[in-house]
Amino acid sequence: VQRKSEAGDINSRDVVSLVNGAISAKLAIANRAIAYGDGLFETIALIDGSPQHWTRHYRRLNAGCERLGIECPPDSILQRDLAKAQKYSPVTTRAVLKIIVTRGEGDRGYAPDPSGKPTRIVQISPWRIPIVAPTIPPLTLTTCLTRLGLNPSLAGIKHLNRLEQVLAAREVLGARADEGVMFDLADHAIAGTRSNLFVVSDGVIRTPNLEAAGVAGIMREIVFEEASSVGAGVLEGSIARGDLDLAEEIILTNSLRGVQPVTRFVTQEGRSRALSTTLGELLRRLFSTRGLQP
Amino acid sequence: VQRKSEAGDINSRDVVSLVNGAISAKLAIANRAIAYGDGLFETIALIDGSPQHWTRHYRRLNAGCERLGIECPPDSILQRDLAKAQKYSPVTTRAVLKIIVTRGEGDRGYAPDPSGKPTRIVQISPWRIPIVAPTIPPLTLTTCLTRLGLNPSLAGIKHLNRLEQVLAAREVLGARADEGVMFDLADHAIAGTRSNLFVVSDGVIRTPNLEAAGVAGIMREIVFEEASSVGAGVLEGSIARGDLDLAEEIILTNSLRGVQPVTRFVTQEGRSRALSTTLGELLRRLFSTRGLQP
Repeated sequence: VQRKSEAGDINSRDVVSLVNGAISAKLAIANRAIAYGDGLFETIALIDGSPQHWTRHYRRLNAGCERLGIECPPDSILQRDLAKAQKYSPVTTRAVLKIIVTRGEGDRGYAPDPSGKPTRIVQISPWRIPIVAPTIPPLTLTTCLTRLGLNPSLAGIKHLNRLEQVLAAREVLGARADEGVMFDLADHAIAGTRSNLFVVSDGVIRTPNLEAAGVAGIMREIVFEEASSVGAGVLEGSIARGDLDLAEEIILTNSLRGVQPVTRFVTQEGRSRALSTTLGELLRRLFSTRGLQP
Repeated sequence: VQRKSEAGDINSRDVVSLVNGAISAKLAIANRAIAYGDGLFETIALIDGSPQHWTRHYRRLNAGCERLGIECPPDSILQRDLAKAQKYSPVTTRAVLKIIVTRGEGDRGYAPDPSGKPTRIVQISPWRIPIVAPTIPPLTLTTCLTRLGLNPSLAGIKHLNRLEQVLAAREVLGARADEGVMFDLADHAIAGTRSNLFVVSDGVIRTPNLEAAGVAGIMREIVFEEASSVGAGVLEGSIARGDLDLAEEIILTNSLRGVQPVTRFVTQEGRSRALSTTLGELLRRLFSTRGLQP
């Protein structure tokens, strides 16, 4: 589907994008997102027109902008963009809202113009993810060879430098798995390519600390707050490769996919085993009941 | 200056860009360069219409494409784009040629479409760098707090994930220095924000090895080959923070700036000292004589 509107281009395949409030399928080549990945993004479930966990997503976007020294667009401006995009979007019920904030346009060179103005992209795409079923779908987790570099300056925030995830996602595709664990050079598990990671052993839920790598996910944040409702606490700490081999359960979280218990864990070396999903199912049911699951 | 041509847009400020061979100042938002920095670039001195060290730049671009699994555009296609861009460019004598190759357009999600087609951007910009003078210009080098993450998958190649360099370049700007050294988390010096680094102690030239971080620069490669002409060899190895404090000379290299001896080294903590430039001057003169210096 390729259509034109009076306001400008609408992208193909039912994707509607606004650049600084104007409908556009294109971005200036001078934008620093292209040259350096100089910006941040959020991916948000848009259900019945409402962006899920908006306040949390905006808070993270804002924190990311502060870290990178980019002026964050006000909440109200992004909301106005969203309302406009929704008028043009043919997508109803469920959609994916993506927000990108970049440092804006600039001349060649890493050093940004201190008087530069940020660019915001607000985009609505069709929901292409299987909708969460009442029963747990099978989910195979593998391990990736591509490492996550450690950098406290960039850890936690959802910036646009995602080549590590791209390379790891290619591995997952090649392994015909659903998701892959990424490790740092010291062989600590940090995250899935597109999800946060929780490991259950002896009834304790642990999740990697994200001080030097990884993205602090919104669903991860909610698991921290809600885990006690299922009679469990969450500890943040380092998780060695061997801890995954001994895990009773592994649970993934993601803003579009919610809580996902892993049913099978397959290592690079080919060891494969089924995992129990008791705590994962409890968490997932809790999230569904409370309307936290997208 | 904002002009229009029959072929499409010419960017403002005398920058001419071709996207897949067609003049355009814009890129589709669906391009993976924007979402993930999923691509590579080269920055090349274009002198009297001739791209300096073209074979070496193309070789590195090709190696980067291979590493990321992106199909590299043939040399002949890039040359054809360059010839076309030159017809539209008002810039003569000296200009900057930038080539970007991305994995092309795609849907949302890290995993690339295996049948996706790469995008090439060929851009000519005005030369805004002071032209190398016969005498050594003063050059103050500082140290940056922003670290370089270690990742063998991405080390050496000139990919589009450059937030670390952006943050470090902001520090350099704030410190009113000309360039800044970046360290990894183990406090090993890796590179300047936009240059490779050579440290001279006891007549020995050493440069950081780039197996886990940094970009393998074209001028760095040439220094390896030419250093013996000035009676010196170059050793690759790890360079600790303390080695910089003891260095007799520090030399930077960059494709647009050539060989640059550092005249003053200022640490974050404020220690400042003048450096000698004997070997740096010899190298710089050699590069000028041989036409290697842009």
